[in-house]
Amino acid sequence: MSSGVEGLAVSRPLNELTLAEAAKMIAARRITSEDLVRACLDRIALRDDEIHAWAALDPEHALVQARDCDSRPVRGPLHGVPIGVKDVLDTVDFPTQMGSPIFADHQSRSDASCVSMLRAAGAVILGKTITCEFAGIAPGPTRNPIDRERTPGGSSSGSGAAVADYMVPLALGTQTGGSVLRPASFCGVFGFKPTFGIINRAGLKFAAESLDTIGLLARRLEDIALCLHVLTNSARPVSFTALDRPRIGICRTHLWQKAQPETRAALDYAARLAARAGANVEEFTLPPSFVRLSEARETINNVERSRSLAWEWANHRQQISVQMSQAIKNGQSISDEQYHAALRFAERSRQELDHILDSFDILLAPCVSGEAPMGLAYAGDPSFQGLWTLLHVPTLSIPAIRGPNGMPVGIQVIAKRFSDHSLLNCAQWLVLMASLDGTKSLTEVTDANLKRA
Amino acid sequence: MSSGVEGLAVSRPLNELTLAEAAKMIAARRITSEDLVRACLDRIALRDDEIHAWAALDPEHALVQARDCDSRPVRGPLHGVPIGVKDVLDTVDFPTQMGSPIFADHQSRSDASCVSMLRAAGAVILGKTITCEFAGIAPGPTRNPIDRERTPGGSSSGSGAAVADYMVPLALGTQTGGSVLRPASFCGVFGFKPTFGIINRAGLKFAAESLDTIGLLARRLEDIALCLHVLTNSARPVSFTALDRPRIGICRTHLWQKAQPETRAALDYAARLAARAGANVEEFTLPPSFVRLSEARETINNVERSRSLAWEWANHRQQISVQMSQAIKNGQSISDEQYHAALRFAERSRQELDHILDSFDILLAPCVSGEAPMGLAYAGDPSFQGLWTLLHVPTLSIPAIRGPNGMPVGIQVIAKRFSDHSLLNCAQWLVLMASLDGTKSLTEVTDANLKRA
Repeated sequence: MSSGVEGLAVSRPLNELTLAEAAKMIAARRITSEDLVRACLDRIALRDDEIHAWAALDPEHALVQARDCDSRPVRGPLHGVPIGVKDVLDTVDFPTQMGSPIFADHQSRSDASCVSMLRAAGAVILGKTITCEFAGIAPGPTRNPIDRERTPGGSSSGSGAAVADYMVPLALGTQTGGSVLRPASFCGVFGFKPTFGIINRAGLKFAAESLDTIGLLARRLEDIALCLHVLTNSARPVSFTALDRPRIGICRTHLWQKAQPETRAALDYAARLAARAGANVEEFTLPPSFVRLSEARETINNVERSRSLAWEWANHRQQISVQMSQAIKNGQSISDEQYHAALRFAERSRQELDHILDSFDILLAPCVSGEAPMGLAYAGDPSFQGLWTLLHVPTLSIPAIRGPNGMPVGIQVIAKRFSDHSLLNCAQWLVLMASLDGTKSLTEVTDANLKRA
Repeated sequence: MSSGVEGLAVSRPLNELTLAEAAKMIAARRITSEDLVRACLDRIALRDDEIHAWAALDPEHALVQARDCDSRPVRGPLHGVPIGVKDVLDTVDFPTQMGSPIFADHQSRSDASCVSMLRAAGAVILGKTITCEFAGIAPGPTRNPIDRERTPGGSSSGSGAAVADYMVPLALGTQTGGSVLRPASFCGVFGFKPTFGIINRAGLKFAAESLDTIGLLARRLEDIALCLHVLTNSARPVSFTALDRPRIGICRTHLWQKAQPETRAALDYAARLAARAGANVEEFTLPPSFVRLSEARETINNVERSRSLAWEWANHRQQISVQMSQAIKNGQSISDEQYHAALRFAERSRQELDHILDSFDILLAPCVSGEAPMGLAYAGDPSFQGLWTLLHVPTLSIPAIRGPNGMPVGIQVIAKRFSDHSLLNCAQWLVLMASLDGTKSLTEVTDANLKRA
């Protein structure tokens, strides 16, 4: 499933290597980190004037990091590979501007925990990727690399676009509503939000602390698995093993009526594929009370945003977007009783879901309402993703089909809390089944079919 | 219960006013914020060369803030009153040094959420109070104002000492193990750790993100209630109402054998007092599985510390204390399975406790092993407090008795999650009963009996 070093043609553009491939080749001294980083920087130089995926980039500093890796013994499983970091995570060597003029040129004193853990495993931090203002909904300038007239999704806009456009093999994102999975779906890459809390959040600018989860965007599942291993200091990486008749629930959710035809088709395609491949597939309906989770998420999101941006509101109100100002005002008007009730309801729902999910290996659910919308002003509807963010479960978007305009459409794969490894294994099984299936391939969307400029 | 403005003799030293008294007198223009702040600064000038409660202080800046309050209409319920801030919380106008040379002179770009909310309510941020290194166990130079040869407790050492020594009426602390309640008990003031999450943590340097809770230290419960009202944006402040036969469980916990005679006496005193005052008092034993919570807290604490200090460890290891280095190394050696198992066990225990606490208004439990230990090298045992921190319940220390060396000894009052208002009301009832009781007064420890230099 993972590529052996020997099978790789080095003539392939280095910026198109996956993270796992590149790490193996660097460790085997088949390629240098400097060459790889240079290939990524060249791609960025060629494309980023149009795509605008990067908020901060310092080619010379990236090359210094790369040459340093090349001059040393292998430090860890990410030795010499470049990674992008969403611009709400602190980095000691790049500004952290959070998509807001309030933090123009802001320089943190230290690295975020996750950034430091990546570096300790040998990674080269290539630069900071564009975020919507404070990981909210007011978009930055990033364009969707597959169709530049469309949004890349948000708020991890730059991470989605940079990975999809082969500027970097993997980037960190964060998800409070749907900020990892939606850009992943819109840009045609994998987006993974692990179980709440298992990637440490020290050094993250909070949007809403009960929801904020650090996630990963990549073109290959094995790259996500590799980084998760590093970021959770796990004893073993995910072992991709054969599955016999996985139990899969098809969960359309109460939001199904918002699903456009391409999203309905994507879920149906994945369900049929899984059934043909031998999975035990059944329709599954969430408890009726879960309808109220969408509103609970809004309540929690607005209250916590109003508090995490208390200083910005008090001192720089005129530099906060209309959208964020509205969220803050909404949050300020919500009583503590309502807020606490929403927190408690969410916790009860998580416990309920834990029990339900004992009967399934994974759920398949809609990921987005449909293709990436036209224009850059609206980064898309977060409700399909936000439901699961509030539930703290691990969730992954897999690019599944092309929509009517040729844009990728993802499906969402969900597992029980703390079953992150099992989720990735089931997802890899699904991707493998698709590649064997022949008729239509999940992986074709992530790889060969991405338009190249 | 709260003092009317008319009854107050302004001839009383202004630095001895409670927060609520001072706020009322400033709002009524009976005193100025400037005079109050000056009295606190004078007290600090007199005493802090010996006590070392403050990590950063700027008298002129404090007076500027105070005069600004005096020149404006009343902005909120804390208009013009000075508050101290533990030095792990960001402040835009003071360095945030976290008790570590790694952050010497570190200046944040913004205020922490809680600091900004206090300022929006009119508070004057007087300065930063000394913390143990990164809110851990390696102590700073702070001395216990009641006996300078003894520790003030930690990690909110400066907050406890400054409040007890009448340098400031209230200070913010944080608790990951026992860092609010222990210094409160050792210094003879009230320390309150609310329900996990209800005071927003944006702008807090994480020690262990599943545990870190912002709390309050003050000489009066009404001051804690007032600040909680501001920090949770609650519709109403705590209403202190009469109670008829509150249901009180006496919970000695599995740690009871570590309780020294003075702690046993403190709990017995409070139990007898409550019973005499009409409460329905019964012994209560936690489920046997709760014994394992102490170990689970260690696991979570060590793993999360190792991650939140990943950058410091990678880059400034030689400037990290021996104690913290050991915690980090322990954390790095714990598998992700063990860490996740501890998180899940804690969550299940919280749910179990929710059900149990339906039968009680409050629990009374030991707060500390005993009096503040001699010396400054060891800030005391956090296990009695840490159990409840992991359970995310609101918990308050009330100064109850004097120990054999004349040092204060607190008891711990615990309520169900999100029952913070009810907890404070029950605690106030207990304090009131003590003052009516005549034989021995809870409040005498907090007020008249504090040794004054």
